[in-house]
Amino acid sequence: MGQMLIGVDFGATNVKIGCFDLQLQLIDHTSVTTHADQGAEAAVERIAAASEQLVHDVGGSAESIVAAGIGTPGPADYQNGIIINAANLPFRNTPIRQMLSTRLNCPVAFDNDANVACWGEFTAGAGKGVSDMIFVTLGTGVGGGIISGGRLIHGCGGNSAEIGHIIIVPDGRLCGCGQHGCVEAYASASWTAERAKEALEAGEASSLEALLNRNGGITCEDVWQHRQKGDALAERITDETARALGMLCVSLLHVLEPCRIVFAGGMIAAGQVLLDRIRHYFDEQIWTMKKEPLEIVFSSLGEDAGITGAAGLGRELLKSSSLQG
Amino acid sequence: MGQMLIGVDFGATNVKIGCFDLQLQLIDHTSVTTHADQGAEAAVERIAAASEQLVHDVGGSAESIVAAGIGTPGPADYQNGIIINAANLPFRNTPIRQMLSTRLNCPVAFDNDANVACWGEFTAGAGKGVSDMIFVTLGTGVGGGIISGGRLIHGCGGNSAEIGHIIIVPDGRLCGCGQHGCVEAYASASWTAERAKEALEAGEASSLEALLNRNGGITCEDVWQHRQKGDALAERITDETARALGMLCVSLLHVLEPCRIVFAGGMIAAGQVLLDRIRHYFDEQIWTMKKEPLEIVFSSLGEDAGITGAAGLGRELLKSSSLQG
Repeated sequence: MGQMLIGVDFGATNVKIGCFDLQLQLIDHTSVTTHADQGAEAAVERIAAASEQLVHDVGGSAESIVAAGIGTPGPADYQNGIIINAANLPFRNTPIRQMLSTRLNCPVAFDNDANVACWGEFTAGAGKGVSDMIFVTLGTGVGGGIISGGRLIHGCGGNSAEIGHIIIVPDGRLCGCGQHGCVEAYASASWTAERAKEALEAGEASSLEALLNRNGGITCEDVWQHRQKGDALAERITDETARALGMLCVSLLHVLEPCRIVFAGGMIAAGQVLLDRIRHYFDEQIWTMKKEPLEIVFSSLGEDAGITGAAGLGRELLKSSSLQG
Repeated sequence: MGQMLIGVDFGATNVKIGCFDLQLQLIDHTSVTTHADQGAEAAVERIAAASEQLVHDVGGSAESIVAAGIGTPGPADYQNGIIINAANLPFRNTPIRQMLSTRLNCPVAFDNDANVACWGEFTAGAGKGVSDMIFVTLGTGVGGGIISGGRLIHGCGGNSAEIGHIIIVPDGRLCGCGQHGCVEAYASASWTAERAKEALEAGEASSLEALLNRNGGITCEDVWQHRQKGDALAERITDETARALGMLCVSLLHVLEPCRIVFAGGMIAAGQVLLDRIRHYFDEQIWTMKKEPLEIVFSSLGEDAGITGAAGLGRELLKSSSLQG
């Protein structure tokens, strides 16, 4: 094997590690437990050892690793490669990029997990071939990343693309962030389930009621499943989620004029029906002045977007250092 | 005099032309009538002749002009420097950049008028010193420009920063663009006046009523003036405009994380009271998770932002060509 890239997707519980060739083709991947409680140095050592093992297993050596990238939960100081105070991680002021770079003896790129996954889709997934793309993750929260003119947008403090906190309803639902009317408070997985629960508690009839009584709660997946079986409430809740996301697409188009918006995250398991409805509500709400060729699609890399993007950002470092050298 | 830059702000009625030194200090300025009906070649000749005269008047010669820039009403093909079908201009498929470059014998930059003014504020006005800035023009419509990481954002077709068409109210007021609930349909100068007019027609008492009866219409300036004199309706209308703009700032902050949002255009004549209220409603609506150091300010270049930014973009061309050369 020739030169290889390592991509690291650093989560609070698990760390996913991928080994890629320079064309960003995944060769093999592995994962290790984060054990954040054992400290950052131990975590970096575990990641580096697993990376080297992975490379060995596919016929390479430690020297085959020419660059790496790592994505972590934000916020962090991305310019200086330091985890300051990440959500769900006990690390404080940890120079993770330098630590991993020293240990692997290669340049290491560092960005937040959403930006890294965004870069993965952009370079090797559903965003391939365009210059301007917005990546929207639909999970417990709504987050994302922005590519403009082929570059990741970071904002002045590395905290741009907090897409879930665009306000879509004045004085609307209270979001976990303290704002009212955030798109997240309507269209995330947890709030979609919550809206269904509220409707049940308000006395609306639905096949979801028995489930709520049995389990004490319902999930977004429950809503999708009951919609498929023809439940009217689940139908309406799905529709409202799609409408909020269609409206989000309209506003994002006008701010950044992407050619493509890529939705990702657990919620896209809802499948084609969700995608079709987001497109429908985009078409319904967008201006009539002219017709933009915006494509609205689902992620194609799924869970591998993070490791792919991390390795891809490592490759960018390599390119820029070879240009400068 | 040494080397000079020419900045051209090309409007449907008048063309403003500024002559700048390489530090982007305005040396002198002039204007010519557009006479778009006489065709693009005649317009370019008039602009070039006026530019040369301007340079002569301050002690230079045609050879002193080392670069120029021009901003025109959109939409256009900015990458290729072609006016395709600009609003209020009869030019079609006009390679304006090349025409002016040939005539002035220097590199010419080309962008839409809002981006050019945005670049002016960024390099020499209220946006100086930051890396990420959003420029919002409040006039008949609401438009703008975006600087991210020190660069203008263009989107995939040169039509980003259509900031006025972010939707802030689902199923809200019908905007001229065909959408419902655009920020422009609440907070532009014309819609601010329109909202006041509607309230009067609905029977609300106000000192604006006599004005409406006398003139058959009211303007945004009338609203500001009557607010100053203590009129309650004018007070409420001003407040609603500021609230919509505060909400816009919240959403823009979350998408792009600018350090500064710069408001410009005729409406900022409302003065400090409007700025204070926008800031107030931003503070009221922004999340409580953390405190971003966003500054909300008014334009400092006013009418000169366009010529300054056009000259500034010309200077960028010069820099990049000297780097490549």
